[in-house]
Amino acid sequence: MQRRDFLARAALGTAAASLAACGKSETPPPASTAPVPAAPVEQAPAPVVQGALPFVRWRLTSSFPRSLDTIFGGAEVLADRVRAMTGGRFDIRVFQGGEIVPGLQAFDAVEQGTVEVAHTCSYYYVGKDKTFGFGTSMPFGMNARQMNAWIYYGGGQELLDDFYGNFNVMSFAGGNTGVQMGGWWRKTVAKPEDLKGIKMRIAGLGGAVFAELGVIPQQIAGGDIYPALERGTIDAAEWVGPYDDERLGFYKVAKNYYYPGWWEPGPMIHFFVNKTEWAKLPREYQEAFQAAAYEANVLMMARYDHQNPIALAKLLQSGVKLQQFSEPILSAAYKAAQQLYADEAAKNPGFKKVLAAYDKYRRTQNAWFSVAENRMDVFLQSQA
Amino acid sequence: MQRRDFLARAALGTAAASLAACGKSETPPPASTAPVPAAPVEQAPAPVVQGALPFVRWRLTSSFPRSLDTIFGGAEVLADRVRAMTGGRFDIRVFQGGEIVPGLQAFDAVEQGTVEVAHTCSYYYVGKDKTFGFGTSMPFGMNARQMNAWIYYGGGQELLDDFYGNFNVMSFAGGNTGVQMGGWWRKTVAKPEDLKGIKMRIAGLGGAVFAELGVIPQQIAGGDIYPALERGTIDAAEWVGPYDDERLGFYKVAKNYYYPGWWEPGPMIHFFVNKTEWAKLPREYQEAFQAAAYEANVLMMARYDHQNPIALAKLLQSGVKLQQFSEPILSAAYKAAQQLYADEAAKNPGFKKVLAAYDKYRRTQNAWFSVAENRMDVFLQSQA
Repeated sequence: MQRRDFLARAALGTAAASLAACGKSETPPPASTAPVPAAPVEQAPAPVVQGALPFVRWRLTSSFPRSLDTIFGGAEVLADRVRAMTGGRFDIRVFQGGEIVPGLQAFDAVEQGTVEVAHTCSYYYVGKDKTFGFGTSMPFGMNARQMNAWIYYGGGQELLDDFYGNFNVMSFAGGNTGVQMGGWWRKTVAKPEDLKGIKMRIAGLGGAVFAELGVIPQQIAGGDIYPALERGTIDAAEWVGPYDDERLGFYKVAKNYYYPGWWEPGPMIHFFVNKTEWAKLPREYQEAFQAAAYEANVLMMARYDHQNPIALAKLLQSGVKLQQFSEPILSAAYKAAQQLYADEAAKNPGFKKVLAAYDKYRRTQNAWFSVAENRMDVFLQSQA
Repeated sequence: MQRRDFLARAALGTAAASLAACGKSETPPPASTAPVPAAPVEQAPAPVVQGALPFVRWRLTSSFPRSLDTIFGGAEVLADRVRAMTGGRFDIRVFQGGEIVPGLQAFDAVEQGTVEVAHTCSYYYVGKDKTFGFGTSMPFGMNARQMNAWIYYGGGQELLDDFYGNFNVMSFAGGNTGVQMGGWWRKTVAKPEDLKGIKMRIAGLGGAVFAELGVIPQQIAGGDIYPALERGTIDAAEWVGPYDDERLGFYKVAKNYYYPGWWEPGPMIHFFVNKTEWAKLPREYQEAFQAAAYEANVLMMARYDHQNPIALAKLLQSGVKLQQFSEPILSAAYKAAQQLYADEAAKNPGFKKVLAAYDKYRRTQNAWFSVAENRMDVFLQSQA
């Protein structure tokens, strides 16, 4: 008898006696007649030449600049892993926003077949249809873990791919930033009334909700935010979170750093792939791409979670004042957001369909997260 | 000029004008002399036969029974993806706990080379050395996202692999259950004094901490818990969370469902691989394995997050009473845990080394999570 076989059999014989310590690892006692699977004697005595897998080159356009290394890096994580898994045969070249198409046209470039794949946020495209908002983040929507649950197991993937299918595009979750911060404010705001007339650099649905409260949303390119904030042309500006924000130096000209960024509770980044190009891939490459997308998804969140505390500590040492949006402001914004969703649903059946599913899901999730997860987190935070 | 080339160039020309909407997707204006990467004309005109990749068969022993489909399923996620990515050439066969070796000997089986890989919890092996606790979960330790940050970016992987290296084993994160529940209690407990003499089915470091508070930890196999709880032989029993707990029916004999399970704030499950076997793998298979482990990690957490709220709702409809561990009980347990760690560190230098890094990291993480993440979650939960 092989040594391994012996050990396997010997171990099996003592299974019943050693089950006591942890029920989770327990199994029913094995039937004595159950065949013991043989351990492999040796790996692959005769290597076989693999069936002809073609060289494939894809281009990936990111919506992000290389300088946002964590969010941009998600695409590199995917491309590097896919390349390594396929011995370099499936080669996805990553371009930053603007190299092939402007960052905000990444999705369109996939639809049109200019590139095979994009790494971008679906909510950049709410101008086409507000339904694009759900894939990334809705104001007061789901957090990072909840988004994963919805996309992977809660029907979100199917709902959204049905929608993206209108553009000959399919999606793969590919990152998350976690809750973003509420941006840099020159002055503090305590009540909803304090928001009236505030000029804030904020885009998308978050800007639309703020507008309902009297904020005047401003569309300003990243490089122009700092001088605008410094001169007082704008009163506030939102960006991402501590790690990305710190490097742009906003804290030097606006000391009040608000939280939470309720317009982005758990923004998911996606890989969008042209369906026609996807269908041409060998099965092995489709599988490699999918696995690497999961990796990019979990790693981006972990990398932000690792970096944000370090950056926030630096910011606080620079004299930044952390400010919490007050309950009345959050409540007013929440109400405005729900009204905006109801209005859009009344005129957009596609939006209505996704909203119904999304909203039901987030309520169920929040009910659960309010129990063990929240109680644990709050207690632990109080001990730190 | 190819149509794609044209579109790419045309789009590039308008890059500067369209940067306004979202700074995050912004890039520096491309230099006019920058070469425009050519779009691939067609995929792989001449497929080339891939270098000889061997057939490899591995056996994976899980510590878990198939009936715990989500935690057991993590190993199937990995094996299925690896198989599909390699065209069936890297074949990892998954066995439930007890089929090859007992669940609680999975790590040893890898060390001894009985199997190439195990899917298990490192804290099952604290009997060898309490340092094994850190890889899974420590009482009052890190939550699921924090564990990912620590393992992937915070130095946790290197620290733990250094330790596992003593056993010729290396590790890959491969799942998480999220915060577990605090178990099923026949009677309520309000103060630390109420814990004295309570017979509770709980193992590992959680049991050791409870023992400091007067609880009498019981080691009882899963199938025996229900009758013991029913007869009153034990007063309480912990298992996992709503999804796994509901199916065992404890709610029929102990109505008080406590939270949070402070002994497991974010238990990580790992794939442990024999280093000698790993070194034999072709690079492509090592890469495939790693990507699939990331996938298993993110999917298990998402699957639990999806299922737990549904199960908890059912439990509540069955008359289960949710009970929160009181602040005095949590505080007493927290204090006992810190003392236990200090005592162990005083006599175990390896434990001391990992504890120092782990403890610093969790404090930094909790400081950050108490800001935007917690405020957002608490507000959203209050609206549900």
